[in-house]
Amino acid sequence: MSTTRVSVNGYGVIGKRVADAVLLQPDMELVGVADIATDWRIKSLGGRIPVYAATDDALTAMRSDGLQPVGTFEDLLAQSDVVIDCTPKHIAAGNLPRYTAAGVKVIFQGGESHSTTGHSFVAQANYATALGRDMTRVVSCNTTSIVRVLGALTDAGLLLRARGVLIRRATDPWESHLGGIMNTMVPEGKIPSHQGPDAQTVLPGLDVVTIAAKGAHTQTHNHYWTLQLTRAATRDDVLDALRAAPRVAFIRMSDGLVALNSTVELMRDLGRPRGDMWEVAVWEDLVTVQGDEAFLTYQVYNEAIVVPETIDAIRALTQTAPDAATSMQITDSTLGMRDDFLSPPYP
Amino acid sequence: MSTTRVSVNGYGVIGKRVADAVLLQPDMELVGVADIATDWRIKSLGGRIPVYAATDDALTAMRSDGLQPVGTFEDLLAQSDVVIDCTPKHIAAGNLPRYTAAGVKVIFQGGESHSTTGHSFVAQANYATALGRDMTRVVSCNTTSIVRVLGALTDAGLLLRARGVLIRRATDPWESHLGGIMNTMVPEGKIPSHQGPDAQTVLPGLDVVTIAAKGAHTQTHNHYWTLQLTRAATRDDVLDALRAAPRVAFIRMSDGLVALNSTVELMRDLGRPRGDMWEVAVWEDLVTVQGDEAFLTYQVYNEAIVVPETIDAIRALTQTAPDAATSMQITDSTLGMRDDFLSPPYP
Amino acid sequence: MSTTRVSVNGYGVIGKRVADAVLLQPDMELVGVADIATDWRIKSLGGRIPVYAATDDALTAMRSDGLQPVGTFEDLLAQSDVVIDCTPKHIAAGNLPRYTAAGVKVIFQGGESHSTTGHSFVAQANYATALGRDMTRVVSCNTTSIVRVLGALTDAGLLLRARGVLIRRATDPWESHLGGIMNTMVPEGKIPSHQGPDAQTVLPGLDVVTIAAKGAHTQTHNHYWTLQLTRAATRDDVLDALRAAPRVAFIRMSDGLVALNSTVELMRDLGRPRGDMWEVAVWEDLVTVQGDEAFLTYQVYNEAIVVPETIDAIRALTQTAPDAATSMQITDSTLGMRDDFLSPPYP
Amino acid sequence: MSTTRVSVNGYGVIGKRVADAVLLQPDMELVGVADIATDWRIKSLGGRIPVYAATDDALTAMRSDGLQPVGTFEDLLAQSDVVIDCTPKHIAAGNLPRYTAAGVKVIFQGGESHSTTGHSFVAQANYATALGRDMTRVVSCNTTSIVRVLGALTDAGLLLRARGVLIRRATDPWESHLGGIMNTMVPEGKIPSHQGPDAQTVLPGLDVVTIAAKGAHTQTHNHYWTLQLTRAATRDDVLDALRAAPRVAFIRMSDGLVALNSTVELMRDLGRPRGDMWEVAVWEDLVTVQGDEAFLTYQVYNEAIVVPETIDAIRALTQTAPDAATSMQITDSTLGMRDDFLSPPYP
Repeated sequence: MSTTRVSVNGYGVIGKRVADAVLLQPDMELVGVADIATDWRIKSLGGRIPVYAATDDALTAMRSDGLQPVGTFEDLLAQSDVVIDCTPKHIAAGNLPRYTAAGVKVIFQGGESHSTTGHSFVAQANYATALGRDMTRVVSCNTTSIVRVLGALTDAGLLLRARGVLIRRATDPWESHLGGIMNTMVPEGKIPSHQGPDAQTVLPGLDVVTIAAKGAHTQTHNHYWTLQLTRAATRDDVLDALRAAPRVAFIRMSDGLVALNSTVELMRDLGRPRGDMWEVAVWEDLVTVQGDEAFLTYQVYNEAIVVPETIDAIRALTQTAPDAATSMQITDSTLGMRDDFLSPPYP
Repeated sequence: MSTTRVSVNGYGVIGKRVADAVLLQPDMELVGVADIATDWRIKSLGGRIPVYAATDDALTAMRSDGLQPVGTFEDLLAQSDVVIDCTPKHIAAGNLPRYTAAGVKVIFQGGESHSTTGHSFVAQANYATALGRDMTRVVSCNTTSIVRVLGALTDAGLLLRARGVLIRRATDPWESHLGGIMNTMVPEGKIPSHQGPDAQTVLPGLDVVTIAAKGAHTQTHNHYWTLQLTRAATRDDVLDALRAAPRVAFIRMSDGLVALNSTVELMRDLGRPRGDMWEVAVWEDLVTVQGDEAFLTYQVYNEAIVVPETIDAIRALTQTAPDAATSMQITDSTLGMRDDFLSPPYP
Repeated sequence: MSTTRVSVNGYGVIGKRVADAVLLQPDMELVGVADIATDWRIKSLGGRIPVYAATDDALTAMRSDGLQPVGTFEDLLAQSDVVIDCTPKHIAAGNLPRYTAAGVKVIFQGGESHSTTGHSFVAQANYATALGRDMTRVVSCNTTSIVRVLGALTDAGLLLRARGVLIRRATDPWESHLGGIMNTMVPEGKIPSHQGPDAQTVLPGLDVVTIAAKGAHTQTHNHYWTLQLTRAATRDDVLDALRAAPRVAFIRMSDGLVALNSTVELMRDLGRPRGDMWEVAVWEDLVTVQGDEAFLTYQVYNEAIVVPETIDAIRALTQTAPDAATSMQITDSTLGMRDDFLSPPYP
Repeated sequence: MSTTRVSVNGYGVIGKRVADAVLLQPDMELVGVADIATDWRIKSLGGRIPVYAATDDALTAMRSDGLQPVGTFEDLLAQSDVVIDCTPKHIAAGNLPRYTAAGVKVIFQGGESHSTTGHSFVAQANYATALGRDMTRVVSCNTTSIVRVLGALTDAGLLLRARGVLIRRATDPWESHLGGIMNTMVPEGKIPSHQGPDAQTVLPGLDVVTIAAKGAHTQTHNHYWTLQLTRAATRDDVLDALRAAPRVAFIRMSDGLVALNSTVELMRDLGRPRGDMWEVAVWEDLVTVQGDEAFLTYQVYNEAIVVPETIDAIRALTQTAPDAATSMQITDSTLGMRDDFLSPPYP
C-alpha cells in the first residue's frame, strides 16, 4: 500500500498532536513539520520529526539558533500529498496560494472560515462530501463536539432544537503565562455566539443557538445543553443515541469524575500522550430527561479533540478510505479511543 | 416614629452587610451582632457595633482574647424585635427554638430550607404575604436574582418557560484561601439544580429549570438564560419589562463592562461600601430576541444582593411598611440603588 | 491659606486614587482629571470631578460618546500648579515638554525612570531634597514598600544587607480579563530584579538585592526578606524599629489574617475607599530573628500604597509643608492611616 | 538475577507513579497496590496492576462496587520484600506495626517524620547509610530538591549558607476542585519553615533557612535562593557544580521556558508519563553570582521528583545495588532522566 505523504504547517497545540497522530497511521508518512519558532517547542523535537523553516526569515533564524532545518517550506510541500495547516487564526488563509501553487491538498483548522475552503468537516457527519476534494476545514473543537453530540441525537430522530451555554477555557496551558483571565468570567460580546452557525456548516438543518463565555481555567471547555426533543422520550432513549455515536465517551460523577480536572487526571493515568482526550466526555449520570426536554453537560478537551477528525480528513481528500466508518476505524484504533473510560470488568 | 430593634446573629459575609444596612435605616435600630469568632472579623469592628457572644463558649473565648462583648445571645434577643439569622447553613435552623423562646421575629437566609419558615421572601414578589408573620426566609442570592428577573418578565406577560445555566463563584473572597477550586469547573452533581424549585417557593407558577456549576473565580455568579416567550416579541418588549423591574440594573459591553471584574471595579469606583452591588446587573446589549425566544445574561453579586431584601423583610414581619413599594423606596434610597449605573448626562 | 491647584493626567488605577486623595486635602484643590478613555471609567464619575480630554482625538471621541469634557489638556494645565502624571509607562515621559511649556510642576509615577526627573521620592526618606523642585518621581509600589521597611531598619542602625524575594500580583483586578497569568508563576527574566537599584535612587547606601516573580493572583504583592543585621539583635529590636516607622502597619496570623485575601477583606470591612490599604502590612508574628539575621514578610497593596507619597510630593514641590513630618501628618490623618489595624481596646 | 518483590500501599499521586516506575525496573517486580478507593482511580487500572484492598472495609466496598481485588493487605504483604507506603500524611506511621508484623522492609514518604524511621533518604546524599536497613523515609519533594541542589554546591565546596523562599503549589491538579486557594497567597504561619531542618536530616551540616508560602497555582513548586558562598566565585563555578550533580537539569529563559507552565508543557511534549519531571529544573540563565553570593531559582515537579529516590531506596534497603551510582544509573536510564532537556544537536 502506498502511503499518503503528509506535512504539517505550524507546530503548535494542534500541529504537534496531528504530527504525532500521523506517525501512528499505517497508511500515512509524516514528511515533516514547518514552523517559525526556534525555541523549546522546536528544540525538544530531537530527531523524531524532520523540521522545515516556514519562511525565509525562519530559515535564517533557525540556523543562527543552532537548529538544522531540513529545508524550506517549498521543499516540504514538494514532497507532500496533503498539508495540514495548523498556523494561527488569520494567518492560515493567506497560505492558500502557496498550497495551490505546490499542488498539494490542504486541510485547515477551525480558526479559518468556512468560505476559505467551501467545505467543513466532521468525520461522522459528512466524510462522503469531502471525498476527493482539494481542501476542507476541520471545524473547531467546540463545533466538533456539538456536531458529534447533537448529530447523534439528530441521527436518532430525537432532536428538535438545542440551546447551549459553552464555557470555554480561557487559554491553553502552554501559553497561560500570557493573555489569561484571572478571577473573572468573560461573556462573549454577542448572543448567539458563532458556534451554532458554525455547526450548521456541517449539519445544515440543525436548530441550535449557543451562548459562550470564557471561564477562569486553562483546561477544557464545558458545554451545558437544554434540548427540545421531537417527542417525550426516556432517559435511555437519549443515552442509547449517545452510546451509538462514535467519539462520544461516558464519564460519571458516581465514579468520582466530578470536575474538569478529574477527567484531565484520568487521561494522564490512562497513559494518553500529553494527557489528551479525543472523545467528547458526556456525564452519563447528569443526562436528565423531563418529558420532551433533555439536559446534559459534557467536557471538550480542546487541545486534542480535532486530531482524529484531521486524520480522517486526510483520507477523505485523498480517497484512501472509501467511507467514514473505514477511516474512523483505523484512526480510533491507532489512537486508542474509547466509548467509556471506565467500563467493567474492573481489576 | 418608634424604631424596630434589630439584631444580627452571625457576623459573616451577609451578617456584616445586613448590620451596616440596618444602621442606614431611619426606622430601625441595630441592637448588636452576635458571633462566635474572636479574630479580625470582630476585632475590626471598633466601637461601631455592639458585639454579643453567640454561645457561652464564645463568651469565654472572647473575653480571654481581649474582646469585651456586651453580653450573651439571650441578652441580645431580649432587646430585639427582629433577629436576622446569618449563621452558616445547617446551623441556622437549630437556632429557631431560641428565637421562639425569646419571642422575637426571625428572618433566615437562603441556606435554610423553605419548610423551616413556611415562607420564602423576595420583596417585589411577595411582600404582602409576609406581613405580620413571625418568620420568613430571604431566598439565596441566585434565587433572588431569578425571581427579580424572571418575575419581571412574568409580570409583563412575556415569559412562558425559562432554562438557565448558573455559573457560581467557587468561594467568597474572604475565605478563598480555604476550600477553593483551581483551574477547573465543578458541575453540580444533579440536573436540575435546586435553584429552580427554590424560585418556585416565591413564584409558584414559574416554569424554570436550571443547571449549575462552580467556576474558578471568587466574585459574583453569572447566569445565562434561554427564555421561551409567550409570543413573538421585540427586543424592546423584553428591555422594557426589565427596565420596569426594581433592583435590576443595566450594564453594557459597549461601555467597556465586558467581564465580571469590570463591574466589580465599577462598584469600587462608585464608592459602594465593600464594593457591593445590590442590583442584578443585566447586560443590556446582550439581550437578544429571536422570534418567541429571548437570551440574556446577568451578573449576581452574591455577597450583597440579598441585603435589601432582608431589610424589606424586617418591615414586612413588623408591618412597619404597608407594602413592598413603600419599604423598597426607603431601602433603595438609603443604600443608593440604581437602575442603570451609567446613564447620561455624563461629566 | 491659598490652596495648591492639582490636576491628574491619566484616570487609571493610580490616577483615580490620587484624585480622590487630593479631594480630601485641606490645602489642595482638584482642578480636574485628563484622560483619553470614554467608557465606564469616565462615565461613572458623575459630576464628582471635572473631566478634560487628554488629546484632541480624545476631545472628539468624548463628545461623540456623550461625554462633556470641560476642556482640553492645555486648559487643565493652565489652571494647575502641579500635575500628577499617572499615564501608562512609556507614555508619561513624553508628556514632559507639555508640562514644561505650561510652567507646571510635575510628579511622575514609578513606571518612569529616575533619570526623567533626576529625583525619586518617598516621603519619609527624602522629602527635604524635593523641596521646591520642579519635578520628582514617586517610586513604584514595590520600591516604596522597600524604602519604608528597610529604611526603618536602616534608621534604627540595624540593617547591613537585605535579600528579598518579591512575588508580585500578575495584573490589577480591573484588567484581569486581559493579560493575566493562569495556574503558573512567571519568574522575572533577570536576577537581580530592578527594585533593588530602584530603592537605591532614594536610599543610596542600601545593600539590597531582589529576586522577583509574578504569582497567579490579582491582589497585592508579597515580599519575603532575609536581612543581615549589623549585630545580633532581639526580635523586639526589629519590631520596635518597624513600629517607629510611618506607614508600616502590623497584621498578625494569630488574628486570623493568614493570607493576602484576609487583609483585603479587612480593608473592605474597615470601610476603606475601594478597599485600599496605603500602609505596608508586616506580619508581626512572622518577624523572626536568629542571631544577626532577621526574616520577615509583608504585603503591599500595589493599587494604593503610593497615593500618600504622591500627596506629600505635591507639598514638597510646592513647599507648602516645610518637612516630611508636617506633610505626612496631614496626609495620614485625612486618609485615616493606621499603624496597627487591630489594636485594643476591642469591642 | 532474583527480583525484589515490591508493593505499594496507597495508590495516589505518589503511589501510582512509584508503581509505574517499579514496573520499569529490571530487578524489581510489582506485586500489587493496595488502596481504599473504589472510584475512577482504581477503575482506570484495567488489568495493568493487581489491586488489593487496604482494609477489610475496603475489601467489602470494592467488591460491592464491582471491583475484583486480588486479596487483602496482608495477602499483599505476604508476597512482598519491600512495601512503599504512599498513604496520606498522619496515616502512614500507623501502618508500621503491620509492616513489622509481616516482616517486610518499608519506605515511607516525606509526609512522615524522620523519627518514624530514624533515617531519611536522598540517593545522591546518603545511599550508603541506608544499605540493609529495615526502613527509611524518602524526604518530601521540596526537601529532595534542596538536598540535590544545595548538596551539589556543598560537594563542590562552594556553599556556606543558604536562605530560600519556597513558593509551593497550593494543591495537586487531581484534587484542585477541593481545598484550593484562589486569587491569594498563603504564607506559612511560621518562619523558618520546616524544609530547612528537614534537609538537615539528610545533610546534617547544611546551614539553611527557608520561608515558605502557597501560591495560587496547582503545578510545581518554585524555589528562590540567596546563597552565601565560601569564597568569591564565578558563575561558571556554580554552574559546573550544578552540572556535576545528578538529577538536576538546566532550563533556560532564552529557550522560551519562561514560566512554570512552559516546563510542564515541555514534559508533555517529551512524552513523559503523566508529564512528569523527575529532575530539579534550574534556570541556567537566572543563575547569578555577585562576589561571594549566588542567586538562583528552580522548579520542583512535586508530583514526581521523589519517584527515582524511592526506587533507589528500594535497592538500598535490599542491598541489591552496592552504591548510589549503581542504583541511580539503572533508575535514571529506565526513566529517561536528563541533565539538560534541550541540548544540541537540535533537529
